[in-house]
Amino acid sequence: MDVLIIGSVAYDSVSSPEGAVENALGGSATYAGLSAAFHDKMRSGGGVGLVGVVGNDFTDADYKLLSDAGLDISGLEVADGPTFRWSGSYHGNMGEAETHETHLNVFEHFQPKVPEESRSPKVTFCANLHPALQASVIDQTEPTRCTILDSMNLWIDIALDDLRAVMARVDLVVLNDGEIRMLAGDENLVRAAHTVREEMGGGILIVKRGEHGVLALHPEGMIALPAYPTATVVDPTGCGDTFAGTLASLLAAGEGDIGRNELKHALLHATVTASFTLMSFGVGAIANLDPEQYQERLESFKHIIGG
Amino acid sequence: MDVLIIGSVAYDSVSSPEGAVENALGGSATYAGLSAAFHDKMRSGGGVGLVGVVGNDFTDADYKLLSDAGLDISGLEVADGPTFRWSGSYHGNMGEAETHETHLNVFEHFQPKVPEESRSPKVTFCANLHPALQASVIDQTEPTRCTILDSMNLWIDIALDDLRAVMARVDLVVLNDGEIRMLAGDENLVRAAHTVREEMGGGILIVKRGEHGVLALHPEGMIALPAYPTATVVDPTGCGDTFAGTLASLLAAGEGDIGRNELKHALLHATVTASFTLMSFGVGAIANLDPEQYQERLESFKHIIGG
Repeated sequence: MDVLIIGSVAYDSVSSPEGAVENALGGSATYAGLSAAFHDKMRSGGGVGLVGVVGNDFTDADYKLLSDAGLDISGLEVADGPTFRWSGSYHGNMGEAETHETHLNVFEHFQPKVPEESRSPKVTFCANLHPALQASVIDQTEPTRCTILDSMNLWIDIALDDLRAVMARVDLVVLNDGEIRMLAGDENLVRAAHTVREEMGGGILIVKRGEHGVLALHPEGMIALPAYPTATVVDPTGCGDTFAGTLASLLAAGEGDIGRNELKHALLHATVTASFTLMSFGVGAIANLDPEQYQERLESFKHIIGG
Repeated sequence: MDVLIIGSVAYDSVSSPEGAVENALGGSATYAGLSAAFHDKMRSGGGVGLVGVVGNDFTDADYKLLSDAGLDISGLEVADGPTFRWSGSYHGNMGEAETHETHLNVFEHFQPKVPEESRSPKVTFCANLHPALQASVIDQTEPTRCTILDSMNLWIDIALDDLRAVMARVDLVVLNDGEIRMLAGDENLVRAAHTVREEMGGGILIVKRGEHGVLALHPEGMIALPAYPTATVVDPTGCGDTFAGTLASLLAAGEGDIGRNELKHALLHATVTASFTLMSFGVGAIANLDPEQYQERLESFKHIIGG
């Protein structure tokens, strides 16, 4: 297995200036899984597995969507109760979601169990989830290359010690700019990122900046990339998960220490893949991503940022 | 003459979380002029001239600073009264200045007169100033390569028709992201930029995004660059003027239509030059910029964004 992903599988209700959607398949593991699976398929990789929980209301169509994408869902538990639900809206320049409701539902008592045959993936990716659950998955896996961790402001607010502990155990942390500023208590993003990376004990820190691109702190120096400039922003939900899932899949293709050029290459792909998620509600764009259209946009992005 | 710059020469009082300064030399023409002069000197160019007005309180030290930088100040009028004054402050991530006071003083009755020998520069740069005054300078000059225009939100608020008229007369417009959104009435920056460029009747549109970099719309396609990521942000005043002044000087070195690669090269230099202005109060950093230190940061920036 190339990538094992632990995270949420959810039904999202989202509105933005471009429209609205009710109870659409979402969640951090779903977006990350579908994007990792897309890249895994492109290079005939070793597969992508999900660990998570859904309720008994999870639809057959959604099981099929995950399987059709090539995802190994043997680690997707079914629990008695409704699937995790999130609702939110985007306004103005859609930089940040306003959360209306979060219902943990089956996540409330979830204890992740990594299937025996998935315990040595190349990459373990802990997508956004309570840091204690992320720690449990780190305990259960021995990835041959690296462990990647994402999180969100909620856990900085209510589980900071757990989050700091788990951040110190991984090779690569992915957070957004607001979270980095919160963690460091510093409005200067570059200074804040250096502080957070030191607290992690080194390693690689990726700062997602939404429409402003990405900043990466690698032991061999920083990398800065703009976002893919697009006039079509429909729903940013899942963009960060898409970004990180792509990163996980690209890094599963290499060996040894993660080189700076390798990371740059992976960030290019992550940026372009996330730009598709942005352009429609839900996971449709990423689940049905056409490799040719993808390649075209990748070349266009290289042209936009290139010499 | 390579570049003729019309704009404000001012005494600024600025405070930021990093400190404060009172009545320091500033103004759009000053920052743009000093940065253009730095690049002009680096390549032994044809010189940079300023058109503007100062009061009879303008100090000998400041005249000397401008002359020492190699600027032609024969177009800098002295009027009876105090020099233009601006005061403002920066807070939080210092993305935007809060203006406390603006005293036009000698600018109130200023009518720009371009010296006879400065009427055919390679590039005319209309730095931020009332659009009617910018128009007057465009009437008086016949640049051999191009005219560049900068502006600010104030003129969108109080002189929109004048601004639109002057924007349609130039080859290249430089505005910041907030101004582009205001002009187009659209929160999506990429869409807004395309709208504004169409209203200009084509040409090149540069969208300054402060700490988020720059987006350029060129007839042969977009260019996106991140900002130089720096942990030292002391005073953003004049960064946009430094950026545009550099652009003007770099473009004065070429001939014919402005190519996309040429523009990209100029934007790299503009980004790096502006990063020096950011790192101290007032014009000191840009007036005393060391070419070796500059070259070093340029190489570092190329590494940060490069392959």
